[in-house]
Amino acid sequence: MQLLSVLTLDTMNPAVKKVEYAVRGPIVQRAVELERELSEGIKKPFTEVIKANIGDAHAMGQQPITFFRQVLALCSYPELLNDSTFPEDAKSRARRILQSCGGNSMGSYSASQGIDAVRQDVARYIERRDGGGPCDPDDVYLTTGASDGIVTMLKLLVCGKGATRTGVMISIPQYPLYSAALAELDAVQINYYLNEEKCWSLDISELQRALDEARRHCNPRALCIINPGNPTGQVQSRQCIEDVIRFAAQERLFLMADEVYQDNVYADGCRFHSFKKVLFEMGPEYSDTVELAFFPLHLQIGSLYFLCGFRGGYMEIINMDEEVRAQLSKLVSVRLCPPVPGQALMDLVVNPPQPGEPSHEKFIKERTATISALAEKAKLTEQVLNTVQGISCNPVQGAMYSFPRITIPEKAVKEATDKGQQPDMFYCMKMLEETGICLVPGSGFGQRDGTYHFRMTILPPKDKLTTLLNKVKEFHQKFLQQYS
Amino acid sequence: MQLLSVLTLDTMNPAVKKVEYAVRGPIVQRAVELERELSEGIKKPFTEVIKANIGDAHAMGQQPITFFRQVLALCSYPELLNDSTFPEDAKSRARRILQSCGGNSMGSYSASQGIDAVRQDVARYIERRDGGGPCDPDDVYLTTGASDGIVTMLKLLVCGKGATRTGVMISIPQYPLYSAALAELDAVQINYYLNEEKCWSLDISELQRALDEARRHCNPRALCIINPGNPTGQVQSRQCIEDVIRFAAQERLFLMADEVYQDNVYADGCRFHSFKKVLFEMGPEYSDTVELAFFPLHLQIGSLYFLCGFRGGYMEIINMDEEVRAQLSKLVSVRLCPPVPGQALMDLVVNPPQPGEPSHEKFIKERTATISALAEKAKLTEQVLNTVQGISCNPVQGAMYSFPRITIPEKAVKEATDKGQQPDMFYCMKMLEETGICLVPGSGFGQRDGTYHFRMTILPPKDKLTTLLNKVKEFHQKFLQQYS
Ligand SMILES: Cc1ncc(COP(=O)(O)O)c(C=O)c1O
Ligand SMILES: Cc1ncc(COP(=O)(O)O)c(C=O)c1O
Repeated sequence: MQLLSVLTLDTMNPAVKKVEYAVRGPIVQRAVELERELSEGIKKPFTEVIKANIGDAHAMGQQPITFFRQVLALCSYPELLNDSTFPEDAKSRARRILQSCGGNSMGSYSASQGIDAVRQDVARYIERRDGGGPCDPDDVYLTTGASDGIVTMLKLLVCGKGATRTGVMISIPQYPLYSAALAELDAVQINYYLNEEKCWSLDISELQRALDEARRHCNPRALCIINPGNPTGQVQSRQCIEDVIRFAAQERLFLMADEVYQDNVYADGCRFHSFKKVLFEMGPEYSDTVELAFFPLHLQIGSLYFLCGFRGGYMEIINMDEEVRAQLSKLVSVRLCPPVPGQALMDLVVNPPQPGEPSHEKFIKERTATISALAEKAKLTEQVLNTVQGISCNPVQGAMYSFPRITIPEKAVKEATDKGQQPDMFYCMKMLEETGICLVPGSGFGQRDGTYHFRMTILPPKDKLTTLLNKVKEFHQKFLQQYS
Repeated sequence: MQLLSVLTLDTMNPAVKKVEYAVRGPIVQRAVELERELSEGIKKPFTEVIKANIGDAHAMGQQPITFFRQVLALCSYPELLNDSTFPEDAKSRARRILQSCGGNSMGSYSASQGIDAVRQDVARYIERRDGGGPCDPDDVYLTTGASDGIVTMLKLLVCGKGATRTGVMISIPQYPLYSAALAELDAVQINYYLNEEKCWSLDISELQRALDEARRHCNPRALCIINPGNPTGQVQSRQCIEDVIRFAAQERLFLMADEVYQDNVYADGCRFHSFKKVLFEMGPEYSDTVELAFFPLHLQIGSLYFLCGFRGGYMEIINMDEEVRAQLSKLVSVRLCPPVPGQALMDLVVNPPQPGEPSHEKFIKERTATISALAEKAKLTEQVLNTVQGISCNPVQGAMYSFPRITIPEKAVKEATDKGQQPDMFYCMKMLEETGICLVPGSGFGQRDGTYHFRMTILPPKDKLTTLLNKVKEFHQKFLQQYS
C-alpha cells in the first residue's frame, strides 16, 4: 500500500500555490517540448521555435562585450595575467577585483553586502550619472540579480494581518516578479493602471484612486515603479517622476524604483531620469525624507552585459531608518553573499574602459553597435505591428519589449473560456502551435479587463525579427478570419 | 520637522526581526572594524586579525584547482579556445558547457531548473557515487548555493497557524541558516540535541522525545539532518542513517539531508554514506515512499572547489508528489535561474578530469594535497585544544569545523549576563579584542543550556593554525585565572 505523501498540494504552503509567473509558464514549457519534438524529426508547420518570451543571447546572435569577457577570464585564471595578448586595462581591472576578493580567487564568500571595492565603484558611478549628488557606498547592496533585491525589500516591508496587512502598489501591466513576491509574502497587491492611450504613461490621479480604494481594506505602505517599463516599454518624463515622488511623500509610501533598463532608451526625445537625481533636485524637503530603494541593474540588451546569467545586480537605499538597515544587513547575511563573478561583472559595468585606455575604442564600438541595432528593432517592431488590422502597438521608447494590444473576437473568447483558458493564453498557444513563435500572454502581466495583449522581446537579430513579425501578422489575420 | 519613517523597527516584518545569523553577526562586524583600525595604524595587542569564523580562501592561502580555473576562463572568453597553452580536456569541457548554455556565453539566463547538460552530469555523478541506483536528471535542481535549495524546500513545506503550524526538526547545534529560515517563514523550530558525549552522534530516542513533545503544539512535518555535521564535524554511521530513515518513514516526516560536506571526511574508520544510497539499499518499502530532498553541494575545503563564491549548488528530490513538484518548478522560475558560472562549475565538480585525460594527474595531485592538509589540521586542532584545561573537543571526523566545549567560570557568566550578553559571546568578544582571533560563539548554533562552545574552522594554513591554537590556549588559561 502506497502511503499518502507528507507533502501534497493540499498540505503545502498556500502562499506558494498562489504564486504565478507567466514569463516562464506553460507556454514556455510547451515551446521547449516543441523544440524537442522538432529535433526528434516530428513534423510541425514550422521548422524552428523562435523564443521571443525572454532575452536569449543565442537567438540574438549578439557578441557580449570583449573587455568584460577578458577581465572575467583573467579573474577566473590569474595565470593569464602573464599573457601578453590581454590588454593592460583588462589586466589592471582584474588585479583590482582579485585583490578586493581577498587575493587570488573569486571562489570564496565575499562580504554579504558585497565586495567593498565594487560598492565604491557603484557609488562613484551613481554620482557621475546623477551629476554629483552624493552616494555612500554603505547604501549600496550588491544582490543576486535585481530580483533578489526587490524580494528582500518587499520582505522587510510586509507585516500585519487582515485589514492592517501591508499593501504594495504595483503598475498594471507589471513585471510578474512583483505579483509573485507579494503572493508569496501574503501581502496585498494594489493595482494601479498605466494609461495605454497615452503611451503607457502613469497618471497621478490613477495612483490616488488605487490608493484610496486600497486604504479601505489594507495598509498601503510602498509604491513600486518600473522605469523604463517592462512589459510596456515606456520611459517616464522628468515631470512624472517629480509628481510620483511628491505623491509618495504626501501619502507616506516607501518608494521602490526599478530602473534595470536605465541604459535602454531608444526613442527620440526620451531620456532616462533616475528617481534619485530628481529626488535630490527637489531639495531637502524631499531628499531628506522620502525613503527609496533603487534597483538599477543595467540589464542592458539582454546579455550584452552578461548580468542576466551571472545574476549580478545592486540596490541603493536612501533615507532608510538605521535600525531597519541593520535588519536588512542581517537578512542578507543569511544567504552569505551574492555570486562573486556577478559582483566582478557589476564592477565592470559601472566602470567600463575610459577614454585613453587601450580597450576604450572597441568597447564603445561594440556597445554602440548593439544599442543602435536595438533602437532600429524597436522601431521596426512598432511599425510592422501597427500595419496589422486588430493589433495596435505603442512606441517602444525603452527596455526591450513591445506590448501590443490585440483584438480577440467574441467567438475565440468563448472557445478559450470554455477551455478554462485566458483568451490571450489561448491566442498565444495557438500561435505557438501554428508558427513556432513563443510570446507571453498579456494576462501574465495584468491588463484592463476585456483588453488583450502579448509581450514580445525585440531582441532577435533583425532578419529573424522580420520573419517573426511577418508570421505574427499572418497568424493574426488568419485568426481574425477564423473566429469572425 | 522630520517625519517618522514609513519603515521602522516597529512597522517592519516581525518574522525578519526574529531572524538570527551568528556566523556573520556582531563578532564578525567587530573583526572587520579591528582590521580597519589596524590598517590605520591604531595599536592593538595583536598585529593581525585571524578569521576562523568562516572559510576564507585568502587566509587559507590555498590554490583552487587549476583545471576548474582554466575551464571557467575558457567559458568566460571563448577566444581562448584557440590558445594552445590550454589542455584539450579543459577545452572540450568548456565547449560542452558553452553549447549547453545556448551558444557562446554564460551571460544569458538558463532554464530555471538549471542547464540540462549539467543536470545530466549531476545525475550520472550521483549514480556513480551510490553504486548505480538510478538518478533522473529531472529530479535534480541546480540552485544558488545550497542555502537557496534549503530555503526553497522549507518554503514549500510551511503552512498552518497556531497548533497546526508546520514544525521542522533541526539538530542542536545546527547550521544557523535553518533557524533563520524557519524564523522568516514563521514555522516552528523543533530542536533535537546531538549527543556531545558520544562524539555528537544522533540518537533516535532523542528524535522521538523531541517529536512527541512538539506534537502537542504544532504539526511536525520535516526532519533536517546535516551530515557531515556543521558545526560539530561528526560523520554519521550507516546504521544511524538507516535508523533515521526508518524513523522518518514511521513518523511520516519529509526528510532533508544536507550533505554539503560529503567530500570532507578525514577520520580513520569514518566513511560518508549518502542518505540516498542507504535509502535504496533498504528496499522499495522505503525507497518508494520516503520523501527526501538532498543538498549535496561538495562545499569541499572552502573554496578549493570555488563553489562558495560562485554560489553553485544542487538538490535532488525523491518521491515528491507530482503536483508539488510542479509548484516547486514554478517557484524556482520566479527567480529566473541560478548563476550560470556556478552551474558551469558544478558541472566540473561532478565531472572532474578522468584518468587518461591530460589534466587528470594535476587535478588529483592538487585535490589530494588539500585533503591531506585538511585531515592533518583536523587532527592538530583536536590534539592541541584537548591539552587545554577547561576545553574539550570531539574529533573532527568531517566537514571543516571544530566545536569544542569550553568552561566559563561563574564570575564570567555573571559579568556577561550583567552586560546582557551570552556568556560565550562575551568570551569570544574578549578573545577577539585581546588576540585578534575571530571565532563564532556556540550560542549562535544552539547548545544544551549551561554548556558553552565556540566554532572555529580548521582552514587556516598549518603555521597560522598552530599560532591560532596556541593563542586560544593562552587566552583560555588567562581567562580562567581572571575569573576564577
Ligand atoms: C523590470 C524588471 N525588474 C527586475 C528584473 C529581474 O532581473 P534580474 O535578472 O536581475 O533578477 C527584470 C528581468 O527581466 C525586469 O524586467
Ligand atoms: C551545513 C551547511 N549547509 C548549507 C550551507 C550553505 O552553503 P552555500 O554556500 O552553498 O549556500 C553551509 C555553508 O556553510 C553549511 O555549512
